Amino acid sequence: MNREEALKIVKPHLTDHRYEHTIGVTDTAVKLAEKYGADTYKAEIAGVFHDYAKFRQKEEMKTIIVERGMPESLLTHSSELWHAPVGAHLVEKEVGIEDLEILEAIRNHTTGKPGMPLLDKVIFLADYIEPGRQFPGVEEVRELANENLDRAVLKAIQNTIIFLMKQKQLIYPQTVDTYNDLLASIKEKGK
Amino acid sequence: MNREEALKIVKPHLTDHRYEHTIGVTDTAVKLAEKYGADTYKAEIAGVFHDYAKFRQKEEMKTIIVERGMPESLLTHSSELWHAPVGAHLVEKEVGIEDLEILEAIRNHTTGKPGMPLLDKVIFLADYIEPGRQFPGVEEVRELANENLDRAVLKAIQNTIIFLMKQKQLIYPQTVDTYNDLLASIKEKGK
Repeated sequence: MNREEALKIVKPHLTDHRYEHTIGVTDTAVKLAEKYGADTYKAEIAGVFHDYAKFRQKEEMKTIIVERGMPESLLTHSSELWHAPVGAHLVEKEVGIEDLEILEAIRNHTTGKPGMPLLDKVIFLADYIEPGRQFPGVEEVRELANENLDRAVLKAIQNTIIFLMKQKQLIYPQTVDTYNDLLASIKEKGK
Repeated sequence: MNREEALKIVKPHLTDHRYEHTIGVTDTAVKLAEKYGADTYKAEIAGVFHDYAKFRQKEEMKTIIVERGMPESLLTHSSELWHAPVGAHLVEKEVGIEDLEILEAIRNHTTGKPGMPLLDKVIFLADYIEPGRQFPGVEEVRELANENLDRAVLKAIQNTIIFLMKQKQLIYPQTVDTYNDLLASIKEKGK
């Protein structure tokens, strides 16, 4: 499957705005993959499909979370978190993508996870900094993304945690686990 | 044991600065207990002893954490977290305080815990806002403490999480669990 074929599959599942965002994420993911040595093809496909399930009905997503044995803690947290793991499932089931690295990057693009593989970091960060994103702090993360992948992802997670608290929203524990894991890894590497 | 006796026991374990802080916490805890209907005597004793283990050697604290089956995750996080659970243990063993509510309030005064009892909240907050504390955001929490105990504790936890991230320090997961639990409880109560 090439980029055009992938985009053609995903388009009907997205609003125009979200489709523009998807193209931004895909382009950014490919650039980050080139810069940091990830697989550019996998980055492209994961970018195209990362929001595949974004507009599914909540009830459908809930059912998939329960039936597929995904963490039920998702259900007590914001439904904003659901489309990533549900998307990984549906992209495999409906689109036939079986590459585990691509599916994993889709699954973790909202919460992160401890021990994120390179491709996961690329997609997570691309989703945060793609050119259509405009919010306080994004420019700082864009600049960090030119210097150090881990520190850019860490900063994005920090901003997300602060944003959630300001919005009086719950913080998904896995996001904090990811923060702790990345911070420890950066300190260990001394950079 | 009255206040004077308790202070006499704790004094040799603290620096002068920490002793002043302890008196501030104790006075604040009693006021908060009066305001929010907690047991003022327990608040007083928990306030006096909350930092009892603050200046123990790290090795002694580590040994107690391991031997007493406390969460070993403490050991991978800042040693700043150790004196609270270790203190609860030593206050029971060395001072002979057996009241479980007092011990629990000492144990949780740094990290909080989901489902914090009233006395835990009083000590946690008193430790954060006692008159000797001076840092950005403390005044806002002091004002909230006059209005709503839960919202004041929540704000103190938020500030702590942001402070830790700015300092590039790990966030103890139980603190985030406490944030989530308090936020959900405040939303449920609609205040």
